[in-house]
Amino acid sequence: MVLKVYGDRLSQPSRAIIIFCKINGIEFEEIEINIFKNQQYSPEYKEINPMNQIPAIVDGELKLFESHTILMYLSCAFPQVASHWYPSDVYKRAKIHSVLDWHHSFLRRGAAGFIFNTLLAPLNGFRSYPQVIIQVEEILLRSLSKLEHIWLKDGPFLAGNSQPSIADLLLACEIMQLELLSEKDYDRILSPYVKVIQWVEDTKSATAPHFDEVHELLFESQKRFREQMATKSRKTQVKSKM
Amino acid sequence: MVLKVYGDRLSQPSRAIIIFCKINGIEFEEIEINIFKNQQYSPEYKEINPMNQIPAIVDGELKLFESHTILMYLSCAFPQVASHWYPSDVYKRAKIHSVLDWHHSFLRRGAAGFIFNTLLAPLNGFRSYPQVIIQVEEILLRSLSKLEHIWLKDGPFLAGNSQPSIADLLLACEIMQLELLSEKDYDRILSPYVKVIQWVEDTKSATAPHFDEVHELLFESQKRFREQMATKSRKTQVKSKM
Repeated sequence: MVLKVYGDRLSQPSRAIIIFCKINGIEFEEIEINIFKNQQYSPEYKEINPMNQIPAIVDGELKLFESHTILMYLSCAFPQVASHWYPSDVYKRAKIHSVLDWHHSFLRRGAAGFIFNTLLAPLNGFRSYPQVIIQVEEILLRSLSKLEHIWLKDGPFLAGNSQPSIADLLLACEIMQLELLSEKDYDRILSPYVKVIQWVEDTKSATAPHFDEVHELLFESQKRFREQMATKSRKTQVKSKM
Repeated sequence: MVLKVYGDRLSQPSRAIIIFCKINGIEFEEIEINIFKNQQYSPEYKEINPMNQIPAIVDGELKLFESHTILMYLSCAFPQVASHWYPSDVYKRAKIHSVLDWHHSFLRRGAAGFIFNTLLAPLNGFRSYPQVIIQVEEILLRSLSKLEHIWLKDGPFLAGNSQPSIADLLLACEIMQLELLSEKDYDRILSPYVKVIQWVEDTKSATAPHFDEVHELLFESQKRFREQMATKSRKTQVKSKM
């Protein structure tokens, strides 16, 4: 039975898994769980992932969720995966785990939190609080600085590696999500981090043409989100003048 | 050169690593990095962990941080560690990774966030915002419910295991941190989750006598924190009557 990947290409960890399968020649069936239609809450999907989150996979009897976990599993279960993605050497593997664990508490929290509170919440009628926005932006900026000055200090890829690991793919997809912001916010936040920008480009090249192809939906949505936010901002300005 | 463990027994992931070393007979030197004295920001410690967080280890040439990463590394690097802590079987290991990744975004965020915002921030002169407290409490309660109904559904230990893994140790130490709250808050939050309470007891028994011994400092601090919070609350009441 072929591997099943449940996800939405608008979700950064879903994209990482799809790109990983494509670049490593892992045959898979992609099943869309549209998060804007709340499909992650359907009873059928709850059987796959009781946490109601994407992505998830089903490989034979195994149902698995959490994107880091999934990429570690796929690296071990599919012998064609090149060793640089998740080295078996205990020291090299430990360094990759360290980046991945750090990602959870810092870059992911900052980036996903900032996008949710400044973009997805206002566009979808959820409340977001100024204090929370200040907090997540601070986490995001601190995380980008750590990426630039610590994780990319010793080589073109994270933790001093000369070839990409699963950590590069997961974290680069996280950074790509910032493309949904307005051009002004995107530049303000990202442009000071030249190594980060170069590393995303390097990860893109190392996984071409799949990286760009899997990100197509993100760029289509970028256009829509930017227009919606501009309209919302114009309406707020008009209201405040009345 | 003996393994060095840098931590503070008031930090839940530090305790997990110390208990793990003791129960598995791993010789180590414990070096206190007192977080209430901001020792994690010293230039010497920055050489060990540039992220200025605890815990961290030094094993020969290897410097490593992030508690999940450290326990995965120790399980692989020290052959005396019993296999149930971090099974080499790819499916069993994947399930443990899944719990650990979930921990980062849910239980840890909820528990550590709730303690920081309701206890550590007010006692140490940091601001905390009502909206943030509502948010972290909600994450904490949702996480406890998932622990009870999903992770502890199929066995005495997490993910249906009959013996504890590194995930049990890390998450049980996280729950223990809630002991710092007032008795009233602790009971309100934890008492509905009978399986969770039993599982913490089981993890304690499986790692006796080290679990209790390493938690002694937490219980000493519990007394102090509860007194300080009671005094603060009395002062606030007097002020509001004036």
